[in-house]
Amino acid sequence: MELTAQTLDLKLATPFRISRGVRHTAGNVLVRLEADGLVGMGEAAPSAFYGESRESVMAALSHFSQHLGEDPALIEDILSACERAMGDNAAARAALDMALFDLLGQRLGVPVVTLLGLNPARTPRTSFTIALDTPAEMAARARAAARDYPILKIKLGTDHDLEIVRAIRDVTDVTLRVDANAAWTPKQAIRIIAALGPYNIELVEQPVAKSDLEGLRLVRDNVPLPIFADESCVTLDDIARVAGKVDGINIKLMKCGGLAHALKMIAAARAHHLQVMLGCMIESSLAITAAAHLSPLVEYADLDGALLIASDPFDGVHIERGKLVLPSRPGLGVCPRESARRRANRHEAARVTARVTPSEASASSASPRDAQPA
Amino acid sequence: MELTAQTLDLKLATPFRISRGVRHTAGNVLVRLEADGLVGMGEAAPSAFYGESRESVMAALSHFSQHLGEDPALIEDILSACERAMGDNAAARAALDMALFDLLGQRLGVPVVTLLGLNPARTPRTSFTIALDTPAEMAARARAAARDYPILKIKLGTDHDLEIVRAIRDVTDVTLRVDANAAWTPKQAIRIIAALGPYNIELVEQPVAKSDLEGLRLVRDNVPLPIFADESCVTLDDIARVAGKVDGINIKLMKCGGLAHALKMIAAARAHHLQVMLGCMIESSLAITAAAHLSPLVEYADLDGALLIASDPFDGVHIERGKLVLPSRPGLGVCPRESARRRANRHEAARVTARVTPSEASASSASPRDAQPA
Repeated sequence: MELTAQTLDLKLATPFRISRGVRHTAGNVLVRLEADGLVGMGEAAPSAFYGESRESVMAALSHFSQHLGEDPALIEDILSACERAMGDNAAARAALDMALFDLLGQRLGVPVVTLLGLNPARTPRTSFTIALDTPAEMAARARAAARDYPILKIKLGTDHDLEIVRAIRDVTDVTLRVDANAAWTPKQAIRIIAALGPYNIELVEQPVAKSDLEGLRLVRDNVPLPIFADESCVTLDDIARVAGKVDGINIKLMKCGGLAHALKMIAAARAHHLQVMLGCMIESSLAITAAAHLSPLVEYADLDGALLIASDPFDGVHIERGKLVLPSRPGLGVCPRESARRRANRHEAARVTARVTPSEASASSASPRDAQPA
Repeated sequence: MELTAQTLDLKLATPFRISRGVRHTAGNVLVRLEADGLVGMGEAAPSAFYGESRESVMAALSHFSQHLGEDPALIEDILSACERAMGDNAAARAALDMALFDLLGQRLGVPVVTLLGLNPARTPRTSFTIALDTPAEMAARARAAARDYPILKIKLGTDHDLEIVRAIRDVTDVTLRVDANAAWTPKQAIRIIAALGPYNIELVEQPVAKSDLEGLRLVRDNVPLPIFADESCVTLDDIARVAGKVDGINIKLMKCGGLAHALKMIAAARAHHLQVMLGCMIESSLAITAAAHLSPLVEYADLDGALLIASDPFDGVHIERGKLVLPSRPGLGVCPRESARRRANRHEAARVTARVTPSEASASSASPRDAQPA
């Protein structure tokens, strides 16, 4: 098995602002895992909020490359060995996990969704996210997006949240979800969510701070809308902690470490009668497609990461009026887009490609402009 | 897809007595699911304790046959549809689930363990069960069994439990687990487990009544040995209920409905830091092998069902000094033993085989001697 990693710069179509800050680019990492003449691909979207950078991903992948063993089919062993060797680093593990599932699917000649015994027709519709801006600008973007997407997710966490929701509801009657990204106090959350009553909101994501689980419970117990934990529910260990305090959880491959871990989280969520949303970071169609293969297991999808970038380097899951349409190719079924392939050929010399062996890891550094905003 | 079912009479090598009663035979059901020229096999071991009989299994399978759809790869859909159509009936669902995994593995040309991304070398050792009898007889059987099996599970729940353990420990120093099958009160359990101190017992299974979860907690909080729930932990819904009240759980395909459900239970158990044992009923090597494919995920195995029957009709997982050695054939990798095949050919006319369609279900009845003891 040979693991290589290269930078994957994703430029956002428009700056993406949430309550914590704004992003213009995503400095992701593309992983290629070669074994038995096949190539599995994975993507890491490091998040500063979870203590990751492109450099930390590269360093983790370099470390992981010592723990791959000989047989890429031993997914559980490989992921456990990597996690034991170097905990956290969920985005790096997610990239490796995706590449392993991609390889196994290719080897067996079936899409990952079939490996998992799932029905590809049962994918949910994804929401499309309206990032923070002035209420008028958000309403304009919501109106435009609503033509293609029947579910919108509105970022909140400003001092004029109700004004935003009102402006958007004025221009569209599609399904609306809101996400405060941990910006409210519990009392604020209860007040704001009560005031959202007239605007027909489907659910509220992460109203309060990541570690304020009692705050989540207080909100949940005092509002009529379903409350979902995102920042407060990262890995399997969090499920029992948030159970009884929220109505659902948002699982992201980049938070938890990949498909194998996400499957376990979904199962544990079901044990607690929690609803499940599959979410994402700013990701290309590579990582988004990986998550989409799990989506027949969940009620809600927020897998719009690749829709927010200016030029998606991969072709994978298609989104048709929000509906996730999985590729029928084996493995993840993701391949480089023609345009990306042409660009790559033109700039071959400029690509930062590194075989991630321990000694060479430092060669795979990213340029400072890739540093991630919060 | 065509689902057929036939009786599978298993005669026990010696009568099998636990605290609730004694069994001489197991009236199991063999399921064959034919699709695209392949045949998947599964086995149901109905349990009167969980409200099942061979007749109820046949009736459930007949009902399920209306909900199979067209594509046997849609395992999750098919199992959900069957459970929605007719809840409970876990043994019947387990048989169907096994046959579906067997088919998928055969279709893709890999063992089920590989479909699941697991390492077949990581199977645990199974215990061998010493059923209830006089202390002297149990000790004699333990001494004989200890030659081949380095872990024994001792059934308890009599008025002379300590005498039994003492007699067995006198003749062997192998690992010993004990299982009260819900026979003790919490106070009795605490007293008996304390008295087991000198006998180096590894763990205690189901000390108290199925529904006495607070009793489980009381025992767990007051004894040094790990406490495992068996009867008290049947499906995914039970995990959160027993979490914090026991140290581990015993998952059985026949209790929970098969591999797919067992995988979810294992994940949920991990979310609660519960240890996991995979157990069984009186089953042939067909169902035992299905469970063994999951066993690389768990710490403990009690998969000795096929060792307790006089003539195992199937060849599948091998047990070498307790170690579960999985077959490398595709799917479950189970095939009829030569001797069983010869017998079947000789008595072809006498076999009770039924295509389980609604109208024919009643033709698949079992003879009265198959009725299960408690």
